[in-house]
Amino acid sequence: MENKKCGKQSFMLGQPVVITHWASVAGKKESEGPLGKTFDLTNKDSYFRQRTWEQAEKRMQQIALEILAKKAHVHQSEFGLVFSGDLLNQCIGSSFSLRNTGIPHLGLYGACSTMAESLLMASMAVGGGFTDKAVAMTSSHFASSERQYRFPLGYGGQRTPTAQWTVTGSGAALVCSSGKGPKITACTIGTVTDLGIKDANNMGSAMAPAALATIRAHFDDLHVGADDYDLIVTGDLGQLGKEMLLTLAQREGLSLGGKLADCGTLVFDVTKQDVHAGGSGCGCSGITLCGYLLEKLNSGKLKRILFCGTGALLSPTSTQQGLPIPGICHAVSIVGG
Amino acid sequence: MENKKCGKQSFMLGQPVVITHWASVAGKKESEGPLGKTFDLTNKDSYFRQRTWEQAEKRMQQIALEILAKKAHVHQSEFGLVFSGDLLNQCIGSSFSLRNTGIPHLGLYGACSTMAESLLMASMAVGGGFTDKAVAMTSSHFASSERQYRFPLGYGGQRTPTAQWTVTGSGAALVCSSGKGPKITACTIGTVTDLGIKDANNMGSAMAPAALATIRAHFDDLHVGADDYDLIVTGDLGQLGKEMLLTLAQREGLSLGGKLADCGTLVFDVTKQDVHAGGSGCGCSGITLCGYLLEKLNSGKLKRILFCGTGALLSPTSTQQGLPIPGICHAVSIVGG
Repeated sequence: MENKKCGKQSFMLGQPVVITHWASVAGKKESEGPLGKTFDLTNKDSYFRQRTWEQAEKRMQQIALEILAKKAHVHQSEFGLVFSGDLLNQCIGSSFSLRNTGIPHLGLYGACSTMAESLLMASMAVGGGFTDKAVAMTSSHFASSERQYRFPLGYGGQRTPTAQWTVTGSGAALVCSSGKGPKITACTIGTVTDLGIKDANNMGSAMAPAALATIRAHFDDLHVGADDYDLIVTGDLGQLGKEMLLTLAQREGLSLGGKLADCGTLVFDVTKQDVHAGGSGCGCSGITLCGYLLEKLNSGKLKRILFCGTGALLSPTSTQQGLPIPGICHAVSIVGG
Repeated sequence: MENKKCGKQSFMLGQPVVITHWASVAGKKESEGPLGKTFDLTNKDSYFRQRTWEQAEKRMQQIALEILAKKAHVHQSEFGLVFSGDLLNQCIGSSFSLRNTGIPHLGLYGACSTMAESLLMASMAVGGGFTDKAVAMTSSHFASSERQYRFPLGYGGQRTPTAQWTVTGSGAALVCSSGKGPKITACTIGTVTDLGIKDANNMGSAMAPAALATIRAHFDDLHVGADDYDLIVTGDLGQLGKEMLLTLAQREGLSLGGKLADCGTLVFDVTKQDVHAGGSGCGCSGITLCGYLLEKLNSGKLKRILFCGTGALLSPTSTQQGLPIPGICHAVSIVGG
């Protein structure tokens, strides 16, 4: 069967591609959360033995790639292609992690949707016959994000109740043309959606309309519905964004069938961990997928999920210039192995 | 014929994809350069009637997309997918340009290699059967880049002789599964290459090793050489970087057969335009390709070129932290229409 475009935003793979291996690296707070035991490696040192937090982020990606290669019993040089991106200006977490490795690299920017975006592109690359082994990878770091997007940590700024906590972690998944593991069958590419929300401390709400638009497009394009999935899992809407999505879906008559979960509320215990509205950042959906979710799919505890990476496409410059926060959401349909 | 991976970094398209239309938008200095007459639209107002330079960059992408749709006699909503990215933090030129257009968007970060990276990905998307119309687009702006990467213009800082001038412009190309126009037959994906150059005012030299590595990989993977091309055109090495590439190639015994050209020295007259070492930025190779080069290919004046987008993957943060400048180069083989 051939790959085919479906509807306006989606495509189906003629031959599903396989996520044969996955790896996750996380920080201290993440290790203390509900998914703490699902990560391959955690480190209490927020610097991951580097000199700066930005370099720590690079190091997390390197470790994730090392673990992935080890699990797959291949040398890193056998990876045909790495799709990766992060939140740092000019994505230096991703580019520095692959410095002089000789691994072909295509850099992405999709903000916190990067885990889904990279999986989607890896599906295209492998499903289209352009390579047989592609890695989808991303990372984020609480301290480098706070410094870059908000205030330096040393400033001791107060966080608003609607703020989310950027996950310190990196997730990597190996997408192959054959093998054992959860399979990607279809993807939906997001559109840049902006309802005019300007509060950079309430990004969940800014992203919720994009999530709704993509889930609706996925259902329409592929003639499926919430009943076809065990779980519809958004990337990092957090508690407020998740509620906003439920409200919007109800108002617009789109049934999510009680299947909605959000990585931002899975990765942290929002009642106990002082993370306010929940987790966020590229690493949030990265480590939740490349551990907990893929394990559940692999063991048959989940049969089919719609993984919806959500991203807020703002920059501190656009916010300072008074512009609203555009959101995007890419969705990947994954069936159990 | 099927798509296939070739060697370590390249792939060939079973059925070449076609660049059916292209569009370019540029600023005043570009309009005064040797390629001035090849752009679809130029504007003396560096703000492009917007309130900020960042928004001007967004506006240039919007105009490029409008012109592209007009030339192709389609409504913008018929574009299946836009691959785009730029140099601004969090790529706000690209995301804001597509706000609420309903066009599926996959964001890239490849620094100044973005025109080649987006073409390469559009080739995968169309060649793999995932969509039949994909746009590859990018932009850069002298004033927004100076402010973000170097000094605010109002500061009146002196530029070093090795510095390059960021092109104000946007290029967009429509890649289709069929139609008339120059064809993409094969691509080579770059690796992150870093020889330790730390001078952020000499980015041409920082990128030259990456260009060499990718050209060599392309030749090796696809069993071709400089003789197979009319032109091997790098993105924005500028005069110094081009010389550096020639020196490195000679030292390593790789023949470029006198075919090397660089968009940074094509787009400006470096002897007259006070741009120091030449043009740079995503828009540099963007507007040179989506005008001059594609026209030459279309009219048969060029038969086959290797378009090598070069990018310096630094950020002001990595530079301030004393790190070197990693480079990347993606190559796209294009034959006349």
